[in-house]
Amino acid sequence: MRQALGRERAARRQSRLKASLRQCPFLTSNIPPVNLLSDEGLSTLEDHALTLLRDIGMDFVGDRETLELWHDAGADVAGERVRFPDGLIRELCRFAPKQFTYHARNPKCSVEIGGRHVVLAPIHGAPFVHDIERGRRYGTIQDCDDFARLAQSSPWLQHAGGTGVEPVDLPVDTRHLDIQYGVIRYTDKPYFGAVSSEQSSLDSIEMSRIVFGREFVNDNVVVMACLNSASPLVWDGTMLAPLKAYARNGQALKITPFTMAGASSPVTLAGTLIQIYAEAVTGIALAQLVHKGTPVIFGNFGTPIDMQSGAPTFGGPEAALLQLAAGQLARRLGVPYRSAGCYTSSKVADAQSGMESALSILPAIFAGSNMMQGCAGWLEGGLVNSYEKFIQDEELLGAIAVITRGIGMQQDDLAMDAFDEVGPANHFLGCAHTQRHFLTAVHRSAIVDNNSFEQWQAEGGLDSIQRANLAWKKRLREFEAPSMDPAIEEELEAFMAKRKQK
Amino acid sequence: MRQALGRERAARRQSRLKASLRQCPFLTSNIPPVNLLSDEGLSTLEDHALTLLRDIGMDFVGDRETLELWHDAGADVAGERVRFPDGLIRELCRFAPKQFTYHARNPKCSVEIGGRHVVLAPIHGAPFVHDIERGRRYGTIQDCDDFARLAQSSPWLQHAGGTGVEPVDLPVDTRHLDIQYGVIRYTDKPYFGAVSSEQSSLDSIEMSRIVFGREFVNDNVVVMACLNSASPLVWDGTMLAPLKAYARNGQALKITPFTMAGASSPVTLAGTLIQIYAEAVTGIALAQLVHKGTPVIFGNFGTPIDMQSGAPTFGGPEAALLQLAAGQLARRLGVPYRSAGCYTSSKVADAQSGMESALSILPAIFAGSNMMQGCAGWLEGGLVNSYEKFIQDEELLGAIAVITRGIGMQQDDLAMDAFDEVGPANHFLGCAHTQRHFLTAVHRSAIVDNNSFEQWQAEGGLDSIQRANLAWKKRLREFEAPSMDPAIEEELEAFMAKRKQK
Repeated sequence: MRQALGRERAARRQSRLKASLRQCPFLTSNIPPVNLLSDEGLSTLEDHALTLLRDIGMDFVGDRETLELWHDAGADVAGERVRFPDGLIRELCRFAPKQFTYHARNPKCSVEIGGRHVVLAPIHGAPFVHDIERGRRYGTIQDCDDFARLAQSSPWLQHAGGTGVEPVDLPVDTRHLDIQYGVIRYTDKPYFGAVSSEQSSLDSIEMSRIVFGREFVNDNVVVMACLNSASPLVWDGTMLAPLKAYARNGQALKITPFTMAGASSPVTLAGTLIQIYAEAVTGIALAQLVHKGTPVIFGNFGTPIDMQSGAPTFGGPEAALLQLAAGQLARRLGVPYRSAGCYTSSKVADAQSGMESALSILPAIFAGSNMMQGCAGWLEGGLVNSYEKFIQDEELLGAIAVITRGIGMQQDDLAMDAFDEVGPANHFLGCAHTQRHFLTAVHRSAIVDNNSFEQWQAEGGLDSIQRANLAWKKRLREFEAPSMDPAIEEELEAFMAKRKQK
Repeated sequence: MRQALGRERAARRQSRLKASLRQCPFLTSNIPPVNLLSDEGLSTLEDHALTLLRDIGMDFVGDRETLELWHDAGADVAGERVRFPDGLIRELCRFAPKQFTYHARNPKCSVEIGGRHVVLAPIHGAPFVHDIERGRRYGTIQDCDDFARLAQSSPWLQHAGGTGVEPVDLPVDTRHLDIQYGVIRYTDKPYFGAVSSEQSSLDSIEMSRIVFGREFVNDNVVVMACLNSASPLVWDGTMLAPLKAYARNGQALKITPFTMAGASSPVTLAGTLIQIYAEAVTGIALAQLVHKGTPVIFGNFGTPIDMQSGAPTFGGPEAALLQLAAGQLARRLGVPYRSAGCYTSSKVADAQSGMESALSILPAIFAGSNMMQGCAGWLEGGLVNSYEKFIQDEELLGAIAVITRGIGMQQDDLAMDAFDEVGPANHFLGCAHTQRHFLTAVHRSAIVDNNSFEQWQAEGGLDSIQRANLAWKKRLREFEAPSMDPAIEEELEAFMAKRKQK
């Protein structure tokens, strides 16, 4: 038995090694994080959050076991309200690792979460899909798989995402199996698991066991659950069940308070930060209570609502400030930090969409984020995954990749031989230094157009959406799925068939 | 005589005080600048730049007087090539003030340049103009004045700019007078002066004397010249004449190396930074040689060319890195710093335009910039001033204004009473804390649309360009010029008439 398992493991590892090398670079940021708040300011926020947790407490709804866990740990449990004595939360959070490896079925695509590492993931869980030819519509499993293919072939996404779009053409209670299959089969990058119920969580973990081998999954992170609190100050049973399922199986949790300032959190940024901290640390602490050492990410999704319409805003300046400050809180806590991707509230991939997306993802770098989610495709406050926006966003991700590299300061970067060769009143176009560096020195983007007006016009005068439309269709036409051991493929299919029969 | 001058001055001051108060807020950044390079890295760049200036030198073309000034100061002058002995440049740069007041004819619009102050200026000197109805075309004085009106009525621009667009309907040799008149008459914010020749520079200064009073201009900065080196390593006579004219009259200089990495500067960022420093400090030093204490701004316009097409890129990641590092160099030198506004190479105000503009202006804040130019209207690498882009860019400027404010940490910002009132599983929409803060806590933007898809559709489904089109036309329809003493108006007109007769 032990021997058979060993052979199985070896075969799976071999199959994973054979998968093709991605071009997508790993990112390690050389940008020092911005310390917007003073240490004193951070202490103030932490202290107020812990006071809040002690005096007002949080509700853990519809999950008796969680209430018992808190009670046994020394918390004050009254009904579904839990109040936390001084020290308990911080003590538990200490078990969360500072950094962990998040494995992909292609080991070359495995990533580090934490430190100065940066991982970019696409939009996850949009109910609608959009492209400029078919318009805005409900998603299908074809769309969902196509977004997995785009994530796989993306030169800038280190992560495959999970549910590119909700496939409403499949039955509600089993569609998580097909979604999970798509992201496993059409990508070999790290992926998210289902969180719609305890069962769907266990299914995602089980499918991961088929892919990675049982023993490997016991000791390693291969799937991550994205969990949101039900702000303000509630953890709902629908999230607690997946939290416990993933934690007990040693898998990773991304714990993100769902704070919309003015609606589900205070309208002031400092108030929202206090709540973000309170909700994040209770989730992190609970994960440690369930299973000490559970790898977690401190998530931040904070953004205000438009005080006129009540609609959430995305890519606005307050969200940028929240990103910076929440990053400081996560660093002090000593856990990896997740913040915004290319968020926008625009309904079309226009200038608003472009500027909001940039104002959303660029601060994440200065905030020292380790993972950014919603980095490609996100439109309309995350309700829509857009094919064109996916491609447009990749331009920002390429820019992020270059920015995180920082500035090379080797002797040859200083270009003194170029000045010697060129001197005043000349140009550097053909000099030896330029020839040595031109392939790598300047980022080459895919759909950004730098041409002259005349040349741009001669080439059809396409705007950014139109160029993106051509690009995603070409990417899907040329897509080749990464290889997979046929035995694994069969086992996955058999598992899905069995589960669907139930 | 002295008494008459005093009365004149008092009347002018009075007239300036009467001008209406702008809503446009002054910006003082609470964002700590990012120190991308270490002190050692910065020293390396400085040392290499000074070595370059000592061993290779710079050309000062077509200006005998400047060569004599350098010779008399101890530089090695051979033909038009000037080489600088160790110490000379740094010694001269020490005379440049760390900070200065830049007066507007409405004293309430005067700004501080330096420290943590941030001043936003629109595009200056575009040859073309664009709006979605009339398309791309040459500009007229009507366009030029309309852009002055938009700058004046902008809620986010602290600066009126200068030449919104080149008015080709006016004679080349006198159009600077009409341009200057427009920005003086239709705005009461600080403005740029002409730099097309020594005479045009002196005309701008003279017109400023008419507006501010002669004595006041002798002792105060009321007009600024935007000067570019002719990279690599050349200062051209066409820029040296205005430099001397403004410096001798105690007015301010914005000195910006025109470095396009890969073409007019080395393709590597470190090489380009060395050149930026070399060209900036020679301009700053020359200004001090002409007139000790001349207020200057260290400008940065660094961006690479697209290595495939040779076209300049704007709003790319390399430009962002150059902004951060050049800001560090300026801070070490102890002079105010200017960097990019909302730059883009896009031909239309689309998603590329939006994301590049954001990637261009947001790093400027993290770079600790004191002035950003090209903050509104900039399209197509600065060749085009676009009415719609002007309005779209203001969304980014509003965001910048909020971000620079940082996070309020007063007791009431912490919102503990809101948590008490609301508690878990509720909402903050109507609570007392929200009511106290909702008017000021969340930025209200003009054309960003946060509505639901359905509501957006019901309101016409307009994209960002279409909304901007409606907005600029409304702004111009409703525009009211700031008041001006009729005597000053007459004197300006008489001066222009006299100059045009010559």
